Amino acid sequence: MKLIEPRTLKGFRDFLPEQAIVRQRLLEKIVATFQSFGFLPLETPALEYADILTGKYGGEGEKLLYRFRDQGERDVALRYDLTVPLARVVAQYPELPKPFRRYQIAPVWRAENTQRGRFREFTQCDVDIVGTDSIAADAEVAQVLAAVLTKLGIKKFEIRLNNRKLLDGMLQIAGIKEELWTPVLRVLDKWEKIGDEAGRLELERAAPDGDFDAFFAMLPTAEEEDDATVWESRVRKTLLKSRQGTEGLNELQQLRGLLEAADLDTVCRFDVLLARGLDYYTGTVMEAVLTQKPDIGSVAGGGRYDGLIGRFTGKDMPAVGASVGIDRLIAAMEELTIVEKQSALTDAYLIPLENALLPELLALGAELRAVGIKTECAYDAEKLDKQLKYADRLGIPFAVIVGKKEKAEGTAVIRDLLERRQFTVRRGTLVAKLQGLVKGE
Amino acid sequence: MKLIEPRTLKGFRDFLPEQAIVRQRLLEKIVATFQSFGFLPLETPALEYADILTGKYGGEGEKLLYRFRDQGERDVALRYDLTVPLARVVAQYPELPKPFRRYQIAPVWRAENTQRGRFREFTQCDVDIVGTDSIAADAEVAQVLAAVLTKLGIKKFEIRLNNRKLLDGMLQIAGIKEELWTPVLRVLDKWEKIGDEAGRLELERAAPDGDFDAFFAMLPTAEEEDDATVWESRVRKTLLKSRQGTEGLNELQQLRGLLEAADLDTVCRFDVLLARGLDYYTGTVMEAVLTQKPDIGSVAGGGRYDGLIGRFTGKDMPAVGASVGIDRLIAAMEELTIVEKQSALTDAYLIPLENALLPELLALGAELRAVGIKTECAYDAEKLDKQLKYADRLGIPFAVIVGKKEKAEGTAVIRDLLERRQFTVRRGTLVAKLQGLVKGE
Repeated sequence: MKLIEPRTLKGFRDFLPEQAIVRQRLLEKIVATFQSFGFLPLETPALEYADILTGKYGGEGEKLLYRFRDQGERDVALRYDLTVPLARVVAQYPELPKPFRRYQIAPVWRAENTQRGRFREFTQCDVDIVGTDSIAADAEVAQVLAAVLTKLGIKKFEIRLNNRKLLDGMLQIAGIKEELWTPVLRVLDKWEKIGDEAGRLELERAAPDGDFDAFFAMLPTAEEEDDATVWESRVRKTLLKSRQGTEGLNELQQLRGLLEAADLDTVCRFDVLLARGLDYYTGTVMEAVLTQKPDIGSVAGGGRYDGLIGRFTGKDMPAVGASVGIDRLIAAMEELTIVEKQSALTDAYLIPLENALLPELLALGAELRAVGIKTECAYDAEKLDKQLKYADRLGIPFAVIVGKKEKAEGTAVIRDLLERRQFTVRRGTLVAKLQGLVKGE
Repeated sequence: MKLIEPRTLKGFRDFLPEQAIVRQRLLEKIVATFQSFGFLPLETPALEYADILTGKYGGEGEKLLYRFRDQGERDVALRYDLTVPLARVVAQYPELPKPFRRYQIAPVWRAENTQRGRFREFTQCDVDIVGTDSIAADAEVAQVLAAVLTKLGIKKFEIRLNNRKLLDGMLQIAGIKEELWTPVLRVLDKWEKIGDEAGRLELERAAPDGDFDAFFAMLPTAEEEDDATVWESRVRKTLLKSRQGTEGLNELQQLRGLLEAADLDTVCRFDVLLARGLDYYTGTVMEAVLTQKPDIGSVAGGGRYDGLIGRFTGKDMPAVGASVGIDRLIAAMEELTIVEKQSALTDAYLIPLENALLPELLALGAELRAVGIKTECAYDAEKLDKQLKYADRLGIPFAVIVGKKEKAEGTAVIRDLLERRQFTVRRGTLVAKLQGLVKGE
């Protein structure tokens, strides 16, 4: 038989236990935070009819869909994010109580260019609030992001906020035609990366008729960036020329007031050029960056998308949400060395010195688990050295060793693998003794 | 713009919050049980190179693979189970310490005929032990299954056990050619469903030269089924004619001894006709059924597959494991009414009587969450009735109502939605008071 080379697809990853433990622990904290805000779990399929997903991510996004024909010749695709499936769900089950607060944590798939350090399968942790246009919901989404990052032990982060309407209004006032907004926003989105000069050139190429002098005059100065109220009073009159601009400014002011009340004004920063790539955003947009690791990019992002659900129902339904990307978060946390590595979860490792004692240890395992001690059992009476090496390698703190002698005497040896000492205990007191040791008594 | 009809693919499901909460709670219990045995998490990609998966599930299984060409014209497929990806991982990372105990909980995809009530996407919860041929590992897998079912509150279940070698030996002795074993085993696997007569006919069609009289003479009688040792002493001499049969019988006896020691003999039953469908099993096979819901089929199953990893490395590596199917489990538990439905996880719902109070409530939300009270905030000062109805519908136990009057007086109204009573508390004592109520004090 021909051997199959064991390998993974480019852009796809295995998470071996040491990494998977870290991921699981992180996800538990994220779930706990989401639930503390009243968000409820939702699960949707990995595969959707392709037409559910197409036309929502822009041309570039759409090319990245894993799309194929299934056995029934249906045109299907793997989900690209969790937002569009949520929009589908809300449209499909109108009976869901509103506002509908849901979280979903699941992998998504994008056939990205892996050379840019991107993955083709990655996990998104999304919260969304559907059915209210109250800016309090936008504020709460920012509050959730801040709570998640704080819960994960990240001390220095910033939530950048903007409003698409404000940006649209500014583009309108600068005389840029609506069909050119998307390419112009794309240039603005990468402004920090490419710099002022290249940015300006790309802008003029994207919209040759645009009055970018007027546009840039509306941007905040360095001083105004520190105090957005100064900027607002300066440009309010100009922005009033556009309904979009006026609405955007009002929403942003309201949002700022709420964030201040929630004590988040110190971590929030208003960034008038922030656009976020996705086509479907209509109002508030936001992203979180770790200020100690800005090069890693945003670790969370989201915004308001009041038009998306209407693509399924014909009736607009307001919605706002955000997505936390745990892959980048873990990468950043590892660099910041705030991730605790762990290679095992086990408390005690049971070692028989001969195979005849295996049945006894299997029963002892059940006894220990019943009092909450995570217990692994050796399956063979191999050399004690080898067994202890295994437990050591995994970082298991205690071994329980039973041989013929111990069995005859009704005892067992407990070996503390971290302190490197061992002692003999009576079988009758073993469980209680080990329980104390595991608790650190 | 054309409206897109919101819909899911046949065989794929959304789990709305009420169902998703149940699933999540179940999975938490399963994870806790797996971890209590020292199993460690592993995550593998949803997509694999097709050749990793093909040739492992038999012809019928292979037809069910979701297989397609990706953007790079690679021949890829969605995983069909979690066992073959595990075998790939073990082959790919030889440095993993052995025995390697891992669990993985993840969806798998099979293009099944949905008319048989089967789903095309479903979640498997797998535990496997790789790197030991000790029958103690087989016993532990059965122990894990029993622990999971017990933890889920299922009182009546049975773990059926057999050994493929024993079955192979019997087929050998009955003169059935090896290439016909798979079709013969397939008939035996559905024996209970189709009955003796149809079964016998199908057997003779599958292997016309087989001496099925000899085969059936080896099966236990009704009395022997209750006491396998009687059966064993009767057929041992016959089975000794086949190396496979002898090995199978010895392994089974060893397994029974271990299960007895672990106090599992009362829930384990030896079933000489149990084959389990998958091609890759080589020794012990097992499945768990709920004795109060036998019609639902097995809720867990597994076995030993000592040859699978060798398909990647050329060198056999022993492995044994099992998979718990939570979809069937939940279906059964619902019918047994041991599933607790819950439509919200929230403790308190904050209601402002006017929008000007929203900032204050956003801050109060953060304060309550900090002491562990899961808190939702209304986003608009809508009619109180409507707000209370929402909280009621979701089963949220407490509402906190703040209006202009309360704000001026420095108070808040706590409404107990289950007891249908309310009282006013001072703002300074609100958090402590609510904390007490949530704890049921």
